[in-house]
Amino acid sequence: MVHNYTVRVRYGETDQMGRVHHASYLHYLEAARIEMLRDSGCSYAKIEAQGFLLPVIDLSIQYKGAVLYDEFIEVETRMEILGRVRLGFDYRLQVKNVLVASARVSLACLSKDSLRPTALPTFLLTSIQNYTESNVTD
Amino acid sequence: MVHNYTVRVRYGETDQMGRVHHASYLHYLEAARIEMLRDSGCSYAKIEAQGFLLPVIDLSIQYKGAVLYDEFIEVETRMEILGRVRLGFDYRLQVKNVLVASARVSLACLSKDSLRPTALPTFLLTSIQNYTESNVTD
Amino acid sequence: MVHNYTVRVRYGETDQMGRVHHASYLHYLEAARIEMLRDSGCSYAKIEAQGFLLPVIDLSIQYKGAVLYDEFIEVETRMEILGRVRLGFDYRLQVKNVLVASARVSLACLSKDSLRPTALPTFLLTSIQNYTESNVTD
Amino acid sequence: MVHNYTVRVRYGETDQMGRVHHASYLHYLEAARIEMLRDSGCSYAKIEAQGFLLPVIDLSIQYKGAVLYDEFIEVETRMEILGRVRLGFDYRLQVKNVLVASARVSLACLSKDSLRPTALPTFLLTSIQNYTESNVTD
Repeated sequence: MVHNYTVRVRYGETDQMGRVHHASYLHYLEAARIEMLRDSGCSYAKIEAQGFLLPVIDLSIQYKGAVLYDEFIEVETRMEILGRVRLGFDYRLQVKNVLVASARVSLACLSKDSLRPTALPTFLLTSIQNYTESNVTD
Repeated sequence: MVHNYTVRVRYGETDQMGRVHHASYLHYLEAARIEMLRDSGCSYAKIEAQGFLLPVIDLSIQYKGAVLYDEFIEVETRMEILGRVRLGFDYRLQVKNVLVASARVSLACLSKDSLRPTALPTFLLTSIQNYTESNVTD
Repeated sequence: MVHNYTVRVRYGETDQMGRVHHASYLHYLEAARIEMLRDSGCSYAKIEAQGFLLPVIDLSIQYKGAVLYDEFIEVETRMEILGRVRLGFDYRLQVKNVLVASARVSLACLSKDSLRPTALPTFLLTSIQNYTESNVTD
Repeated sequence: MVHNYTVRVRYGETDQMGRVHHASYLHYLEAARIEMLRDSGCSYAKIEAQGFLLPVIDLSIQYKGAVLYDEFIEVETRMEILGRVRLGFDYRLQVKNVLVASARVSLACLSKDSLRPTALPTFLLTSIQNYTESNVTD
């Protein structure tokens, strides 16, 4: 299934090239997956409150064209469970139906106490599985 | 006394006006006071490790002229103990001896556990007082 | 009149104190005044397209309490014409009806070509005046 | 050859996980390649002044472990000419001799006027080639 998130470019996210600075995209990707998790019924705030952290461990992004101040970016996100301790997110970013970037991000599940890798918690896996199945037609 | 800190403008700190974005200055001010505290013998990392936080509670800044990508900013900082729970910092920012901004920032001392205001710890006050006296000729 | 803008705190806008970093607020203030200008019928993008820049020349902000990841901040903005070349914005930021910060920001009008101060353009003044009058009951 | 750049983590570059936010690394990578270009005799400021832009078109980064506030990151950079219009940069980031991240970034050369891809300018190619040859023992 696909989750859709829209974000408008802030002025401070541009640089002197007159376009969005390449690091700003990472904040859009983060916001998009946080809204997808919230939509699944398991907010990231809850995940941390339950004693888990999900830091980014791998990220790749291809920039296909400039995005400008004030433009709306449509972020399409797909989420995938990758083994026992990892989540994967695939992204397509569009402005006015033109692909401006694609990306892939992996998160690892850590215990907040030990800061060591730990299995994704059951409440999160259940939310993701129910969410995916309830949206198979998307 | 005056502490001097130099920082070079990063590309991502500019915006599409072709100058440093006004929010980027706050990171320079923060880095300058952190280096001043380190220089006094009491690093901010130590302050947090001892159970204290020093969040910003008040900030004012006057922007006198554009600062450009790749320029060096010379930050002059003066530090002052303001009563039992507050520190004050006065700043002058120059590029090639021209004043580009001035600022004033106040920090409050909080207990990391209670998140409530608490007296500035003695080890910090002592460091600041010794530091100030040892540099009276500056 | 008052303009209302709501923004949700992004994860990357926090710092290791577990609260929103003080520089992140400047991006919220910027977004709020940009939306207020858009609402008045004169978007900031149009202002730049017409050959003007509105850099921040003065900013003060009082932080009244911590704002946390994922919280919604309600930004109330009041706009004021300050003489021939300046605009002023007064802000109150609330989370769940509790004041978390107040701020004041001044912008100067520059010619994009000369980068020198210039009178606020008539199309902008007219938009602001109509907007203010049409909302006197707010 | 390898270029070495050291950067200290700023407070505002952390997030509430208590470590450097993953987007902050992109600013370190950018600063490192800018210093490498400067060291080669061809600063990025000069490249833009001559009518060229070098936006990022592809980036991948692997995060191997947390980096903390105030730590020094040692960034090792290798630069490569990739065909007529692209530059590639390979990075290894270490803290106290432990690998904390590796990354690869590609830049494309655009004409500042047309915003279209254009051949890397001769003055840049010459600088890079001389720089690489003069450091073969590194």
